[in-house]
Order: sequence, then C-alpha cells, then structure tokens
Amino acid sequence: MQPPKSVKDLARKTQQDITFDVPVSGHNFESDMDLQEFIKYFSNTGFQATNIGLAIKEIEKMKNSKIFFGCTSNIISSGLRDIIKYLIKNKFIHVFCTTGGGIEEDIIKTFNPTFLASFNIKGSHLRDSGYNRIGNLVIPNENYEIFEKWLVSLVDEITEGYSPENPLILTPSKLIKIFGEKINHQDSILYWASKNGINIYCPGITDGSIGDILTFHPKRECLKLDVIEDIYNLNREAFFQKSTGAIILGCGIIKHQILNANLFRNGLDFCVLVNTAEEYNGSDAGASIEEAISWGKVVPDNTAVKIFGDATIIFPILVAGSFYKQNK
Amino acid sequence: MQPPKSVKDLARKTQQDITFDVPVSGHNFESDMDLQEFIKYFSNTGFQATNIGLAIKEIEKMKNSKIFFGCTSNIISSGLRDIIKYLIKNKFIHVFCTTGGGIEEDIIKTFNPTFLASFNIKGSHLRDSGYNRIGNLVIPNENYEIFEKWLVSLVDEITEGYSPENPLILTPSKLIKIFGEKINHQDSILYWASKNGINIYCPGITDGSIGDILTFHPKRECLKLDVIEDIYNLNREAFFQKSTGAIILGCGIIKHQILNANLFRNGLDFCVLVNTAEEYNGSDAGASIEEAISWGKVVPDNTAVKIFGDATIIFPILVAGSFYKQNK
Amino acid sequence: MQPPKSVKDLARKTQQDITFDVPVSGHNFESDMDLQEFIKYFSNTGFQATNIGLAIKEIEKMKNSKIFFGCTSNIISSGLRDIIKYLIKNKFIHVFCTTGGGIEEDIIKTFNPTFLASFNIKGSHLRDSGYNRIGNLVIPNENYEIFEKWLVSLVDEITEGYSPENPLILTPSKLIKIFGEKINHQDSILYWASKNGINIYCPGITDGSIGDILTFHPKRECLKLDVIEDIYNLNREAFFQKSTGAIILGCGIIKHQILNANLFRNGLDFCVLVNTAEEYNGSDAGASIEEAISWGKVVPDNTAVKIFGDATIIFPILVAGSFYKQNK
Amino acid sequence: MQPPKSVKDLARKTQQDITFDVPVSGHNFESDMDLQEFIKYFSNTGFQATNIGLAIKEIEKMKNSKIFFGCTSNIISSGLRDIIKYLIKNKFIHVFCTTGGGIEEDIIKTFNPTFLASFNIKGSHLRDSGYNRIGNLVIPNENYEIFEKWLVSLVDEITEGYSPENPLILTPSKLIKIFGEKINHQDSILYWASKNGINIYCPGITDGSIGDILTFHPKRECLKLDVIEDIYNLNREAFFQKSTGAIILGCGIIKHQILNANLFRNGLDFCVLVNTAEEYNGSDAGASIEEAISWGKVVPDNTAVKIFGDATIIFPILVAGSFYKQNK
Repeated sequence: MQPPKSVKDLARKTQQDITFDVPVSGHNFESDMDLQEFIKYFSNTGFQATNIGLAIKEIEKMKNSKIFFGCTSNIISSGLRDIIKYLIKNKFIHVFCTTGGGIEEDIIKTFNPTFLASFNIKGSHLRDSGYNRIGNLVIPNENYEIFEKWLVSLVDEITEGYSPENPLILTPSKLIKIFGEKINHQDSILYWASKNGINIYCPGITDGSIGDILTFHPKRECLKLDVIEDIYNLNREAFFQKSTGAIILGCGIIKHQILNANLFRNGLDFCVLVNTAEEYNGSDAGASIEEAISWGKVVPDNTAVKIFGDATIIFPILVAGSFYKQNK
Repeated sequence: MQPPKSVKDLARKTQQDITFDVPVSGHNFESDMDLQEFIKYFSNTGFQATNIGLAIKEIEKMKNSKIFFGCTSNIISSGLRDIIKYLIKNKFIHVFCTTGGGIEEDIIKTFNPTFLASFNIKGSHLRDSGYNRIGNLVIPNENYEIFEKWLVSLVDEITEGYSPENPLILTPSKLIKIFGEKINHQDSILYWASKNGINIYCPGITDGSIGDILTFHPKRECLKLDVIEDIYNLNREAFFQKSTGAIILGCGIIKHQILNANLFRNGLDFCVLVNTAEEYNGSDAGASIEEAISWGKVVPDNTAVKIFGDATIIFPILVAGSFYKQNK
Repeated sequence: MQPPKSVKDLARKTQQDITFDVPVSGHNFESDMDLQEFIKYFSNTGFQATNIGLAIKEIEKMKNSKIFFGCTSNIISSGLRDIIKYLIKNKFIHVFCTTGGGIEEDIIKTFNPTFLASFNIKGSHLRDSGYNRIGNLVIPNENYEIFEKWLVSLVDEITEGYSPENPLILTPSKLIKIFGEKINHQDSILYWASKNGINIYCPGITDGSIGDILTFHPKRECLKLDVIEDIYNLNREAFFQKSTGAIILGCGIIKHQILNANLFRNGLDFCVLVNTAEEYNGSDAGASIEEAISWGKVVPDNTAVKIFGDATIIFPILVAGSFYKQNK
Repeated sequence: MQPPKSVKDLARKTQQDITFDVPVSGHNFESDMDLQEFIKYFSNTGFQATNIGLAIKEIEKMKNSKIFFGCTSNIISSGLRDIIKYLIKNKFIHVFCTTGGGIEEDIIKTFNPTFLASFNIKGSHLRDSGYNRIGNLVIPNENYEIFEKWLVSLVDEITEGYSPENPLILTPSKLIKIFGEKINHQDSILYWASKNGINIYCPGITDGSIGDILTFHPKRECLKLDVIEDIYNLNREAFFQKSTGAIILGCGIIKHQILNANLFRNGLDFCVLVNTAEEYNGSDAGASIEEAISWGKVVPDNTAVKIFGDATIIFPILVAGSFYKQNK
C-alpha cells in the first residue's frame, strides 16, 4: 500500500449527488438587531441553534392543527408557567398534559410564590429552615400548608352527600377542571384552561402533595379518580382531527401520553420536543423521532424537531419567534 | 504582586483538617479473579466505579428494611426483567412501582419475546415491517395483538354483571394483581408478585397499550381504576416501617412516587438511584440526594448513592455483588 | 411510631436562618418586549435561564479584567465564529485559546463557507459525495484542498533558508500570528487577533488538517513548533494581572489551559463556562467550579457560573446581554 | 376519517423485509455464574449492555491489528491506570495517546498515591487542606512537589550543554520516552511503554503540571518540544498498516488525533469508543461513528461500537471479556 502524497489524496469523492448550499453564519452584533432579527440569526448558526430555527418553522406549520402541549412539573415551578398561561389564555394550544406536581404548583403559586435560590444548598439546612428545593428554586413549607387547607375544604365540598359505598367518581381531568373553576386567579394555567374549555390530563395527579393530602382526608373513600375514562378522553382528542401537532417540554408520562394518543390517527403531523434526555439507555424519555415513527406516533414524512437543552432557555425563544410574533 | 518562583508556591495549605487514606487502585488482571473479586475491584477505582462499591454496601444495609423497588418501562423491555423477577420471586424486594409499559411488557413477554435490533434503523422501515422500536430492541406488532385478545377477554370476564351505572371500581394495583393471577408463567414479574403478596403500583397504567385497548373495549365504562385509593395504599406501605430502603432504575413518576411515599416517615433510610438524568434542568428525574433531603424524602444522615449510567450495565453488577452473593 | 395526621406534620421546620425573597417569574408575552427586555426575563425564570442572567452579570464584572476566551473547534465551525470575530475586533477579549480545528476552520472559511446540513445523513453517502460532517454542518473536501495549497506555500515561504539541521523554531502562537497577517479577510478571527495584538494559543495546532499537511510537506523538518515557550507565554498572560476573567465554550485542552494558567495568580476572579459535560465521570471537561477552587484555578469567593447547554443557543444571548449592550 | 376499531388497526404492516430473531434476555441469577458467564449475559440484555457484548467482539476482531489506545487524564487518575499498564506490559496495545495530565499522573503515582474522596467536598476546604480534587479523587499538593523536584533535575540533566541559542530539540513523545526510562517502577505505564517500544503521543504535554514546572525552570529556553515531528510520527504509525483498531476512553484531543491519523489509511478497521459525550452540540467529543465515516476516519463497512457511560465501570468489563480471557 502506498501512503498518500497530499491531503487531497486523503479525500475520496466518487460521486456528487448531495449538495448543500446554505452557508453557516452567525449573529451580526455590528448591526442593530431587534428581538425578531436576533432570533432569526439562530437558524444559520448550526447545532441546536439551527434546531431553534427549525422548531419555530414547525410551530408555524401547526397553525391549523390541534396542538397537544405537555410539560413536566419543574416547568410549572419555573417561570415558564407564565408563558404557558399566555398560550392557554390565548387558546394557542388545545390540550394540556402535565404531572401531579404541575397541577399543584400552578395552584400553589396563586397563593404564594416559589423563590429563586441556588443548586448548591445543603439539603438538611433547607429542611430545617422549611424550604423544599427544586433545582435552583425553593418552595416554603408554608405554601403547602395553605394548599392543604384549600384542597381539604374543596374535597369536603364536592364529596358532600357521597359515601364510600356511593362515592363520587371523577377523572383527573374533571377534578382539574373543578380546581380551575375555584381558583379565580388570572395568573393560573388551570383558571384559563377551565375558562377556555381546554382539557388538562394528568394520570399521575396523586403523585405529590395532592396525593398526600387525600391520603389524610377523612372523606378519602368518598372520591374516586378514574384513569380509564380519562385515557379514553385523551385518545379521543386525537381521533378525527385533520391535523395534530405537539409541543412537549420534558419527558416521562406527559411525553408518552401525547405521542401515544396520536397513534389513533397514525401519528402526529408536527412535533417539537425540548428535553435533555438521550436515547442510549432505551428510555422513552430520550427516544428519537425515528423511534416514534416506528410506533406510528409521528407520521413518517415529517419535519419534527427535537431540541436538546433546558427548556427554560429554549422555550421563551420558541414562543417569541412563533406565537408571540404572529400575535402582534 | 510577585509571581510565584516554583510550582510549590502555587499551592496553598493553611490547615490540614481533612485527610484521605484509601489509595486509588484498579483491577489486577495479572491475578486470577472470580466474579466477586472482579466486582470488589470497582470500589477503589474511582468515579462511578466507586459508586458501584458504595451502592452494594447501601443495599447490604437494607437487609432488615422494607425495600421499595422502582423501574421504568424500558427496564422491563430489557433483559433486566429477568433479574427483577429473581428479586421478586425470592422476596428480596417488597414493593414495586413501574409504569404502564412496564406492566404490559411483562405480560407480553409471557406470550412472545422482544428482540435485539439496533439503534439505527429507519423508523418508516420498521413501521412498514411491523416492528416497534425501543432503543436497540424491537417488539413485533403481533405481540400487541395477542395481548389485546388476552386483555379484552380478561376485562369481559371481570366486568361480568357490571354496568356503567354500577361499575366495578378497582385500583391499578388491584387490576395488576388480577393480571398476575391470570398469567401463570414463571418468567413473569406479575406472576411472582401476586404469588408472594408484593404490591405493584402503577398510576400511569393506562398510558400505553392497556389504555389503547380499554379505549376500544365495549365495556370500558363498566370498569373504573381509582388512583386515590392506590396512593393511600402506597403511602401506607411506608407508614410504621422501622426502616425503609429504595432501589430505583430510571426516573419520572416511578422515582417520585417512591420517594414521596417515604415522606410519611420522614425519609428513606437507604437509597440507591441508577439513572442518566442530570440536575441542571431542575427536573425530579435528575434531582440529587441533597435535593431529596430538603423535602424529607431521604433522611439527612444517609449514605444514599446515585450511580450515573445505563442500568443495563450497572444493575447486574449491583445484584451480583449484593443479593446474589448473600443468597449463595 | 405515629403516622402523621396531615401534610403539615410531614414538614419539619426547626429553625429559619435562610430566607429567599425573589419570586420566580417568566417572560410576559402580553407586553411589548425589545431584545434587552427579553433577555432580562431569563434571570427570574429558574434553572439554566437563571444562569444566563448570572453569567451576564459575571461578564459585566469582568469590565476591568484581562479576559481569557476559549472555545473548541466546533464553535468555529458554527456561526459563533462571527461573534468571536466581533469580540476580538473590538478588543473585548484579550487572550484566545482554541484547538487545531479552530485555527484551520477560521482560515478555511475565508476561502469557502461551511454549510448547513443535518445530523442524520449516512456517513458513507457523505464520504462518496465529498463532504465531511460536523454535527449538522458539512465542509466540502474542496475547502481543504484550497487550504492545503495556501498552507503549503506559506510554509515554503517561511522556511526559505532553513534546513533540518538549522530549522526555523516557532511556537504555535507565533505561527498563528503569521497566519493572521497573511489572511487579509475581515471575517477572520486570526486576522483581527493579529491586527489587535491578541495572542492565540493552541498546543494542539497539529491535530487536524494542519498536521496532515505538514506531514506531507517536503520542508517539514525545517520547521519546529515548540510548545514549551508557548505555555510560558500563556502562563505569563496571567502573572501580574490585577484581575482576570475567563469565558470558555466547550471543554478539553482549551478549558484546562486557561484555568491552569490562572493558577499562577491563585485563580480566576471571574469565570463563565458553557458546556454540556457532567462531572460524574471525573473528567476536567465536566469539573465543577468547586473542583476548580480546590486547585486554585478559581478564587474561593467567586460568583463564577457554569451554564449547561449548547453554546450555539446560549452564547449569542450572553453577548447580546453584555458586550453588545454595553457597546451601544 | 374513521377511527380505528381495535389496537390491531393501529398497526400498519405493509411489508416484512426485516426480521429479528434474538430474544432479549437477562442474567440468570438462579444459576451459578463465573466471571465470563456473567459478562456473556450482557449481550442479550439490550441498550448499552448489548454494546458491551458488541465491543468485546470488536476487540476480538482487532487480534491482528495495530491497536491505537487513547485515554484522557482522569482515566490515569483512576484505577484504570493499572489496567492500561497491564495492556502495555503485555503489548496488547501498540500506540498510546494521552493528555499532559495523563503523563504526569502516571509518574506522580510512582511516588505517592492518589486517594479516594467524594464528589461533594467544598473546594475552599480542600484548597486550605492541600488537596486537589478530580471528581471523587484527591491528590495531595505534596505529590506535585515531589514531581517538581524529579522533573527539575531531569530537565537539568538532559539540557546539560545546551543553550537558548543551541537548544535541545525533542518532541513530546521523545521526552515521554526519557521519562519512561527514568521511572523504574513496575506500576508505571510509561515504564512499560518505554521498555516495550510503545510510543506515547501527547501534543498537550505542557498543559498541566509539566508546563507549570517548565515555566519556572531556569533552563526552560534550552529545551524545545516540537509537535510537528510528533504528528508526522503518529500519522506514520497508521501508514502501511494492514489493519488498525482503536480503543478510546474519553474525548478531546486524544480521540481526535487517533481517528485523524487513521485518515492516512482511509479509516480504522475497528473502533471502540467509551465516553459520555453526546453529538447534539456538534463537538468531536460526541461525534458518532457515522460522522467519523464521512471524514474517512473509520471505514464505511464497520462494526464499530460506541458505549455511552463512565469508563471506570465499562472498561474493566471489556478487558475481562477480551484481553484477559484470551490471555488465560
């Protein structure tokens, strides 16, 4: 074997049937940029910045679709709750899936705020001081105590006249609708969802403070939350729809449910995922769009986008470049 | 300011109140090693290998504790199902939490296998060929069809005599117990759990094929699955226990539920987490043990261990070095 | 042991010496926001968005410091090159460390662009078509061929009169300065660095196309690139400085070198890291600020920030909120 | 559109040209397993466990190949150093690439150990106590002081008779060979590499303590370390080879260099990567095998394997299942 004589010889080019013609380029800070121009520059920057651009296009394509929106509890703990409230208030999204923590934190924030803290505070110190940490945020115990009073009395009210032998049978989404009607606070996602007829699905509604409170509630056995009717309701949200899209921040049950419901129409037409999970461990959390296609959760010919990264940075950019821009 | 004169000057040592005395060392491949010796070597290797050693010690400390075991659906898809079956058959673990997919795949595997494939197969190709991908595994559509028949007939059977007005009210854990009784297959986790009186909790039981099938079932409205009673039951598993431990593979609702239940006794005494999630996005998935302490989910003075990595590699080593070793 | 009677009893609050008072809140899309307002909202959003806010503050504190800037090769492949050029052209940063690929791609882009592509293109297809992939970008082989001609002739020129017995001894930084002088292209980082007297350090200069080309060059033995003098030069950049800061995109040798140089003054005063590496595998890549303090690489009392995520999204926001804002 | 009538209708199977026939299965802890049987079980477990099996096969295929081995500095800090020593002592690998820290820590460990510690120790506390942290390991300052004496005197010795005008010109690999000859300690990688004629490449040799010490050395200007000759030497290691393989733990310059050198023969025949880096940020660190094919760094028809995870857990299993097994 002869070694190569020049770098040129190291290359091999036997055909030329792919071409690429959009040059990579970045933000021009020597010019004046407004917010929309700033956002536009991401498209040609490469890597996940390019995915920002592609996701904004994908959301624009959802214009006439029913949009399923999902997020985990930490997203509601963060300031993104305010953005989701904006989307629901303006009916930009049409079905909402979250976790038990997502429901309870939306309600609790109508009583008292969650606070900025730091990732590096000793757990026992916080415990002794009455704070519960979520990443670099903290929630005072007091907030949960106010919530307990509120929920205990609400459960008393709705179970009036029911008994363990003749229990009130609701579903998580029906209970959440009741929550939304009681809240009366314009910052609340549940408030606007109930006002705007947007259903909120949450099979894990008891996984958190709501479950803790119900565990102690004397009328616990007078209330049943049925998850079968709710999965039927969620799946029906996808049936018959001409076009569906999904925007999902985070993973777990909220991601799986939305994609699974869209099996019933042979897959989402449009899909934007924002999360930090990888596919190498086989979890649905990090499952790629290609994996979703094999299940019929996303249509084969799609322009779906997964952006890797923390939604607290990415989602405000997506909304600014799509819903907000269109709304002005 | 004077620049330093030697590397020595760069160091600063004003006190000496911490000392470390275990030298780092690695596997000695020049000696003969049996399995247990091989495993021992991880302890002094550093990084996550050292966490393997610490987790084995933590599991040993759980000897007289009630052990809560949790895993996500992909773990049951993988060969780890066989190890979990071993743990449940031998009553080494005492409460089990999983997701809807975890339940259905344990059952489906009693009919037909899941197969090894690859991470890199085009989704549309698999879709057209009737395979559903989970990481580098695939499940044929046929398996789901057999499962559908089985479940449809089981639901027919149990709802005999019930009506939408007078529905059968179960909880997910009760339904799973019925599944376990019907299975009659010694490879099944559900089979052994039901035989050994080990409760399986799964609030998201309808998030997957079980939910799909119930959505179509004509007697759908005759069956209710209540998640309130189950969260009470799960939380009660922690009450009054002298000592509790948890071993959790993966994140999401299965991790949160187990830790949250242990709030009821001011925290787990022992805890081993195996997952690939990071804390920087504030999700419970990647929440550190320190964060769990702030909530009272883990006792402040603990030796809890989180191992970062894919459980398919890590968990067999943990079991070999703990339950398997003790069982011999 | 008595089980708790209410959720309130689950909390434990024996002292109250920590308080938090900044409520979490998010972008208000119901108001009009310009770019700077949009950026401000990240601070109170939580998780990595809050780190965006903290990093902007940290960069503001670097106002009177010597700023060491580092980035890996892929950053120069991406559109961020244009932003770094802006920083160097305006003398906002004062020392630059990159890898061999970073040097060659800055030069190559003055000849021909790098193109947007996709993460999912078969490697053999690209190989046969003459494209080299970097994430979702591609560089045509042709670009390397033009670079080869340029570099071969430059090496011919500078080694004129030297022999293997009497070689020209340069350092990587000196050779890079010569590159900068030859380039004459206003988009180039090297051009502006050389014009503005900003040194560029790159011990791995031969790790890539430059090394390939020198491997074939007939006068290869007439040129020596000494890394000892360059480490002395880099370390001297930190000596005597009243105040130093670092902004580092990515990891590896470029991160380690900058932090190590600042050992010589007992640590960086200010530091912003942007990368996706985690600390669990013990690599310097993911090493936390706390680990850096133990080495004296960062001063103990610091407000240093690490942001987890892809720099193509994060860095434009940081620059827009700091250098760009101050420059207007 | 008609909604589906059963789960069966949700599936679509228009062809059947892919089949899979190896059932997923896991470790059978009800049987007696020796170390080799234990390792075999990973193959059929799925996810990264399956990649363990594939990587062992890939290493077996390297039997008649020249094997390039690379690792980052933290790997040498960990107990894996002992395994690498075993591979080099037995000439199982043939070229070694590492970073500056890898070189210095191999030498330092011949004087004094690195110690096990924890990931969670306050940086300022360690700094004041004279310990430098690497993940959950620490190195006492004292170790660096002994190394300084050793290296200062070695540099004095080799620069005897040289002057700044007439410097000794070495390359990193030549200096490392001198180190190996001086060490005389059977635990050292450098010792065995020098004894066995295995070249060690390290362009970043000055990035760390070696660079710090040379910065202060009075004869600093009498010694030159040329990286051009070394890249030529490294690239030549690949030329003319009938078959080459690579095993690389970690990323950065050590990974890039080995793959780049194999461009000179149109790609590695065999390749095993172990690291925790992801491809989404476009870094070479996380670049997939597909990306490497586009550059000609790996041959198009390959069975190369990347295992995601911490090498301290994965690499001992790989060596036990391949080199160790074959060596018995």
